[in-house]
This record gives sequence, structure tokens and C-alpha cells, in this order.
Amino acid sequence: MIKLHQKSYIAGEWVTPDGTEFLSINPATREVLETYHSCGSLETNAAMAAAQAAFAEYRQCDKDQIADFLNTVADEIEALGDQLLETADAETGLGLVRLTGERGRTCGQIRAFAAIVAEGHWVQASIDTAQPDRTPLPKPDLRRMMIPVGPVVVFGASNFPFAFGSVGGDTASALAAGNPVVVKGHPSHPLTNELFVHAMDRAINHRGMPSGLFSLLQGSTNELGGDLVRHDQTRAVGFTGSLGGGRALMDIAAARPRPIPVYAEMGSINPVFIAEDAMATRGDEIAAGLVASVTMGTGQFCTSPGVVVTTPNEGFNQWVARGLSEAPRGLLLNEKIGEELRSSLRAVAGRDDVEWLNPVEESVEDTLAPPNCALRTSAAAFVADPALQQEIFGPVTLIVECDDTVEMKRVAGALDGNLTATVHATAQDADQAAALIEHLDEAVGRVIYNGFPTGVEVCPSQQHGGPYPASSASATTSVGADAMVRFARFVAYQDLPDALLPPALQNANPYGLLRRVNGIYSDASI
Amino acid sequence: MIKLHQKSYIAGEWVTPDGTEFLSINPATREVLETYHSCGSLETNAAMAAAQAAFAEYRQCDKDQIADFLNTVADEIEALGDQLLETADAETGLGLVRLTGERGRTCGQIRAFAAIVAEGHWVQASIDTAQPDRTPLPKPDLRRMMIPVGPVVVFGASNFPFAFGSVGGDTASALAAGNPVVVKGHPSHPLTNELFVHAMDRAINHRGMPSGLFSLLQGSTNELGGDLVRHDQTRAVGFTGSLGGGRALMDIAAARPRPIPVYAEMGSINPVFIAEDAMATRGDEIAAGLVASVTMGTGQFCTSPGVVVTTPNEGFNQWVARGLSEAPRGLLLNEKIGEELRSSLRAVAGRDDVEWLNPVEESVEDTLAPPNCALRTSAAAFVADPALQQEIFGPVTLIVECDDTVEMKRVAGALDGNLTATVHATAQDADQAAALIEHLDEAVGRVIYNGFPTGVEVCPSQQHGGPYPASSASATTSVGADAMVRFARFVAYQDLPDALLPPALQNANPYGLLRRVNGIYSDASI
Repeated sequence: MIKLHQKSYIAGEWVTPDGTEFLSINPATREVLETYHSCGSLETNAAMAAAQAAFAEYRQCDKDQIADFLNTVADEIEALGDQLLETADAETGLGLVRLTGERGRTCGQIRAFAAIVAEGHWVQASIDTAQPDRTPLPKPDLRRMMIPVGPVVVFGASNFPFAFGSVGGDTASALAAGNPVVVKGHPSHPLTNELFVHAMDRAINHRGMPSGLFSLLQGSTNELGGDLVRHDQTRAVGFTGSLGGGRALMDIAAARPRPIPVYAEMGSINPVFIAEDAMATRGDEIAAGLVASVTMGTGQFCTSPGVVVTTPNEGFNQWVARGLSEAPRGLLLNEKIGEELRSSLRAVAGRDDVEWLNPVEESVEDTLAPPNCALRTSAAAFVADPALQQEIFGPVTLIVECDDTVEMKRVAGALDGNLTATVHATAQDADQAAALIEHLDEAVGRVIYNGFPTGVEVCPSQQHGGPYPASSASATTSVGADAMVRFARFVAYQDLPDALLPPALQNANPYGLLRRVNGIYSDASI
Repeated sequence: MIKLHQKSYIAGEWVTPDGTEFLSINPATREVLETYHSCGSLETNAAMAAAQAAFAEYRQCDKDQIADFLNTVADEIEALGDQLLETADAETGLGLVRLTGERGRTCGQIRAFAAIVAEGHWVQASIDTAQPDRTPLPKPDLRRMMIPVGPVVVFGASNFPFAFGSVGGDTASALAAGNPVVVKGHPSHPLTNELFVHAMDRAINHRGMPSGLFSLLQGSTNELGGDLVRHDQTRAVGFTGSLGGGRALMDIAAARPRPIPVYAEMGSINPVFIAEDAMATRGDEIAAGLVASVTMGTGQFCTSPGVVVTTPNEGFNQWVARGLSEAPRGLLLNEKIGEELRSSLRAVAGRDDVEWLNPVEESVEDTLAPPNCALRTSAAAFVADPALQQEIFGPVTLIVECDDTVEMKRVAGALDGNLTATVHATAQDADQAAALIEHLDEAVGRVIYNGFPTGVEVCPSQQHGGPYPASSASATTSVGADAMVRFARFVAYQDLPDALLPPALQNANPYGLLRRVNGIYSDASI
């Protein structure tokens, strides 16, 4: 068992900041587990300076050293064993089954990045060879690839304490692309953060990496986050969380003397459209799948289906309402999320144009085990009021009833940016499905057919991101191989002698990369 | 000869706005050629609404239709014949030789985008096929590609009236990626802008494209630019111009309810480093090349070498000073640029730590034919004062003298973001060159060896962009094939029936694309 000391970690050193106190709380028992203190500008400056110093050294590592290091990070996370699962369960209430699966996914993603780094294609090497005798002007030799951007600040998420936590996808993709990382650990699970530091510390020491490659600042204050984003050495930011939090960081980054990109994955209502024949022939199945998707992780997935768009069908509504009422109540991650959910539900319940399909008897106050809620509204109300497109973070779904397929298309056209949109359809619905998809892919990052949005497959073709407010940078993804390119940029080298070029661009092609050579993809040497 | 009417153009209609008056002026004669009026919010709203309407229709075009359209645009620009060259020369003073070359480059780039569209690989299709029997969970079918973002606003540049003008690289790359474009024509050459509209109008009509695909708003006011960037339908912005102008647009875009990306290519001082043996063995050649590069286009290239970093060499300084004094004076594009250059030179001339190596007898006031200037300062002064890293737009270069190679490395490490950095070195300088390049690629988009930064080759391996303030988005390029991806974003399709997928992702691979299929690149069908 690793003994935890309620500390932060800066470049290999454990530190005890003296900022604002905050608590690790067990959401199931409301028991206070430990007391932590927030880092401040002193710790921010130390961590960023160490990251900048480590960057020069880390750039000297070859791709296999970085891949080995990432694999060691995954090994060391697994070596934390049950202590990691039990600690995270105590702080998040997510349960050992879910957390075991999430640990597997997290280590799998870290090892997938290691494999991508070892393979090397991700730098998108492109070579145009010289034509010295071209007229009127000779053509120079130009070679282009991606290089790392420099120190990256990552904000851990509360809802995925492993996959998007202190050493989750953002941290791993930034490290894989060749950058040092400074993490602001999520204050909802500081003990879990501290355990991840132990794994990173061991991996860094074992692989002889520079100590400034990783720091983790514990803290509950907005000031700490702002300091990290404002710091002159910070080159990019990764964030998973609320729209309010993400937008605040975007605004700070945009106002810097030198603006930097913030890759924020934020709110989403993930609309599910049900076409006519699909509803008629398997509305019951869809209702059952929807209930399972809405209640998964107590509705605290960024891909939770918060809206269902369909023509009215009382049977379907009742299946959904009954299914949600009968589903066991889950646990919310923390008090703040509980307060926000109660406030959202009170606001919706007070509306004339929204009906609560499965009202609960007891008060919804003061519990972290909220009711699973089904709501209903009209397409007209939904299209008219952007407030109905605001995410309610929790096990809640709103059925938007449309007069006909034309109105369903209108709803599709009125959607704000989302991570996903889903269409349920049969072969008979093909025309309606095509018309919907045409609108939907303009509003989302992923279109799903006859499925549900929860469950984000980690693979090269995944896209996890979408137009604002789903994310801050809709061209990028926070899941899958391309998550790395968020933390890299292109550089071209003109007429450099072969020995001065990075290996990925040298004539001999020592890494055996697939390169675009004079416009044609090839893994040959030149 | 096309008769020009001092108009703007919205979705196929010529309009005469009634906003602020501005003049087309011949910089060589100071003669007023024509009077124009600025568009305002009325025209902005009309153009953006038409663009949004055209987007749906344009998305129905297949890749060959878009490629044909782009080729027709290039044909129609060439069909404007000498009138385009003469009009642009009258408004810019750039000369017929340069403008003829720039027209060739512009049409070449448009046709290159057409070829990329016709080929189709640029959408980066990636397919991961389903594994229905995978445990514990089946793997869905995921397919990902780039799709257009929607209406793009382009700000034409003054210094490249063709290549980055109304129908230059930004407009062409946005159209090629599948987006409608609304251009704010640069007020320094409104007649040239109007001629380009004629070419676009003919191409749109000839190819039966939706009329809202292209609009051009003439105007001289900041309000017009702000309105266009703020407009709710605008999805992305392309800009080439000053740091002040670009940053203002970045700030407006970041403050929108829904922030959008601004791809701004802004200021750069393009430092040229000369290593010891290179200076000793061919300082005279380097001086001659530098003089040619500094005076090219009267120093009004974004890649003009504004700074030279070297150990002191009086001979070199004298070659540069004499060469610049003897080089014919060029013409500045407009009065605003003239004022800014005079103001910058006065500020520099008043500094104790900057010496003017070729002072001019006559006053530099009130001329659009400025002297070609060589300045000298110390590395200590340069590193200490960021003001010396501000771009002086015009034929000026500042020689930064370093005590030794260590101090040259220190200057490299202190550089702000730049489009390019250049190293002159011999085989004997290999170690010094390697040490410099290590620092330089962190600050720039392109590293040049034994060449000069002016002259941006248009090819897939080109990178034209760099860390702020050189550009707003250092991962992207405004020249070369990848300029298109600025105006596109990824969408994943999960478990869609083949018929509902875009052709690029269908099993049969009807476009014959190179696709990443289960992680392996292949042009086969599935």
C-alpha cells in the first residue's frame, strides 16, 4: 500500500502547498476522506519552469524511448493494483466494475499512443525534392513534419478519473507528441490524483526521463487554473469538463499576450432521432437501450443522450418513463454536480412547456442518488428556446415530440454543436434517415446509426469532439490516434543537409515511415 | 475591357453600398483612380445569409464538380488578361513582371487545389470495421473523414493582390474544402477586387454553382471586418496582414457567443543566422543575396529578412549597406504603409543602441519610394528589448552582432514566433548549425539552410505559418495542400449503412482513395 500524504508533485519533488483547503469526500457516505490544500502561483511557476527545462531534454529522446516510457507508465498504473480502484471508488462512487474497465481502457489508450509513437507515421512526413534546373526559378528541397509544441497544461476531469484524469488521454497524448505536461488534478478525487503521481514518478525514474516532464498540482481554485493557462511557458491546454469551465479557460487563453489553443471537450446533449418505421417496429427495444444509455454512469457521460427527437408515441414515452423509474439509482460524483442537477431539474419542472413523465414522490433535494428522469416537450418549444438545449448533467432525457418528419428535420437543423447525434431507422426509413444525417453531420462530431452514443470506441477512426459548445476546436478529437496532433505543429525544413534533418525526414528513411514523397505515399528511401 | 462600376457583389448581384468613402490611389503617381463606398451590416447580413443557403447546395456537389469549378475560376482569372495586370499595377505599383508571375502562381495554386479535390485523399478517410463478436463489448464500425465547416470569411491582403487577394489562396482553399466564401476586399486595390468578381461570377454561372457561393464586400472600415467575423453564420476566418489587424479579428472571434477559428498570417522578422565559416568564406555572396531578398517587393513580403544574426564583420556590414544604398528604390503599396515605415524608422533612428549603417541624405518623409535601410545593434540590446523584434514592414534589415556562437544561440533562444528562420553555414559549421536549428524550429514554421526566406514554394511540404505572432494557429499553413484542412473538420460515422455514407467512406471505395483501413493504408475496397 502506498501511503498518501495530501501532496502535490513538481518535477520529482513532493510539495505541500498552503492555499485554499479542499476535501476528498466519499459521495456514497458523505464521509470526509482527507483534507488537501490548493497550489498557487508559486507552484505554477515552479512546475512550468521545470516543464520548459525538461522540454529541451525530452526532444532529444528518440521515438522508441518515448514509446518505452509510455508503456512503462501503463505498467506502473496497473502496478498500483486494487489500491487505485478502491481509492477512486471511495472518491467517485463509480464502482469497481466500471473503474476496472476504465483502467483497462486508460492503459490501453496509453499503450496505443506508445505504439503510434514507435510506428512514427503520426508526424505526417512529407518530402518534395529539389529541382535545381527548374525554370524560371529552381525548386528547393522541402521536407515537413509535426514537432511537439512545448509544455502542455491538462485539466483532469471528474467523470472519468482514469481515462480523462491525471494520466488520461490528454496527458498521454501530449506526452506521446513529445511535450512535458503539468496537470491540474481534479479536486473531486485528490487521492486518486496522488496515486497516479506515484505511477508517473516510478516511470520517469525507471526510464531516466527528465524530472520536469510531469508535475501535478492539486487545487480547487479557479485562480490556479487561470495561472496555469496564463503562464508564458504554457503552449497548449487540454480540458474535459463543463461548458462554463471550458469557456473560462478559452477566454483566458485568447486574452494572453501570446494566445494559445485550448482543447476543451465540454457539454453535449447528444440527440437521438427515431424515424417512423423504427419507432413502429422496435420502439420498445429502442426505449430499453435508451434507458440503459441514460443511466450509464448516472448520466455523467459527456455522450449521455439528453434529448430524444421523434413523432409522438405514448407507448414509447411510457416505456422510457417506466424504465427510468425502475432502473436503480446511481450515485453522482460530488456535491457540486448534485446541486447543479437539482437546480436544472427545478428550472425544467417549473416550465409550462415541459412535462415530467415520471415524477418522483419524494423530494429530490439533498441526495447524491438522484432520480432517473424522463421529460417531454414539443418541437416548437425546443426550437424556440435555446435553454432547452442546455446540457443537464445527470440521468435525464428530454423527449422532443414533432408533428411529422418535416418538423424532425427542422429540429435537426436547429441543433447547437454536439459531440454526437444518433438516428434510429429501418430500411424503410432510408429517405428520412438520409435527410436527417445531412443536417446532423453539420452539427456534430459523430453520427451513430441504430446505436447509442455512450461508449466511445478508442480507435483511429474515432472522432470525439464537435462544433462549439461540444468542444472548443471542432477539427480535433480528444480520443483516438489524432488526439496527439492537438499538441504538435508542422515545421518545414528547406534545403537542409541530410545529417541536420530529423530522422523522419532523412533520405534513408531510417524509421521506415510512410511518407508523402513528391505527392506520392511511399515507405522507400530517397 | 470590362467596365468597372465601383461596386460590391453579393450572391450574383452587383450592389452599391453607401458607407464610408474610400479611394483607389496609384502609389506611383498619387493619382486618385476611383472612389468607392464601404459595405456595412446590411451587406454583411445579406452575403452571410446567401452563403449559408449556398452551403447546403454546394455540399451536394461531388468532388469533380468542385474541381471543375476551381479550374474554371483559374481560367476566368487568366481570361481577364492584361486588364487585370494593368489595373493591379496601377493600384499597387508592384510592376507588370512581378504581377504576371503572381498571377501564374495564383492560378497554379487554384488548379493545384482542384487537383487535390479531384484526387480526394485530402479528406483523410479512415475506416475501422466492426467486430460484432468482440468481448466484452462488440466493436462498432467507425469511419471518419473531413467535411467542410460552412461559410468562411476571407480578408484579402494588400501585399499579394492576387496570391492572397480576393480570389487567392485563402479563398481557393476554403472553396476547395467545400465552403462558401465572403471576401472583404482589401481597400488598397478595389478595382482589382472588382475584376476578380467578374471572373468568379463567370465561373459560378458557367458551372451552375449556387450564387451565394461567393460574395465580395468592398470597404475600408474596421466595422465591416468586425461585422463579418461576429456574424453568427461565419464558421472560420482567413486573414493575411498586420499583427494589429489579425489580433483584432482574433479577439472578436474569441469573444463571440460561439467562438470560431481565425487563421491569420501576420508579422514576421524572419531572422537570418550566419555561422562562422560561412561568413569567412562567402560573406560577400550572402550579403548580395540578402540585399536582393530585403528589397524584393520593396520589403513588403511577409518573409522579408528583417534581422541578420552574426558575429561582427565590418566587411559584411559594408557590403550590405552599400548594396542596399545602390539597389533601386521600390514603391510602397499605399500611404498607410508609408506612414508606418517612416514612423518605425524614426523610432529606430532615435535609439542609442541602434546604428544606421547607410544613412540617407534627404528626408525620408512624404515618399512612397523609401530608402533601403541597413541597421546595426548588439545581441544584448536585441535580447533585452522586444521592440527590436517588431516587424518593420519595408526594405529594412537589422544586423544583430553577437560576441560569439554562444551569444548567437542565446539570440535564437530569445526569438518570438516567426514564419521562417535561416541558417547560412558550411560543412565546417555543422555543429553550430545543428545547435541553432534545435532552437530555431521551436520558434518558426520553416527553417531554411543556405538560402533566403523570400520565395515561398507552393508544394505539399510547404509550411507557411508559425508560432504567434507569425500566425494565429501555428499548426496550420496558408500555403500548400494543407491550407484546405483549415476550413474542414473531422466527422465520424458509426454503423451507417453503406448507402448513407459519403462516397469517400463507402465499402466499394468509388473514389479509389488511399484510406486508413483498420490502421493500414490501402486503396482497396472493403
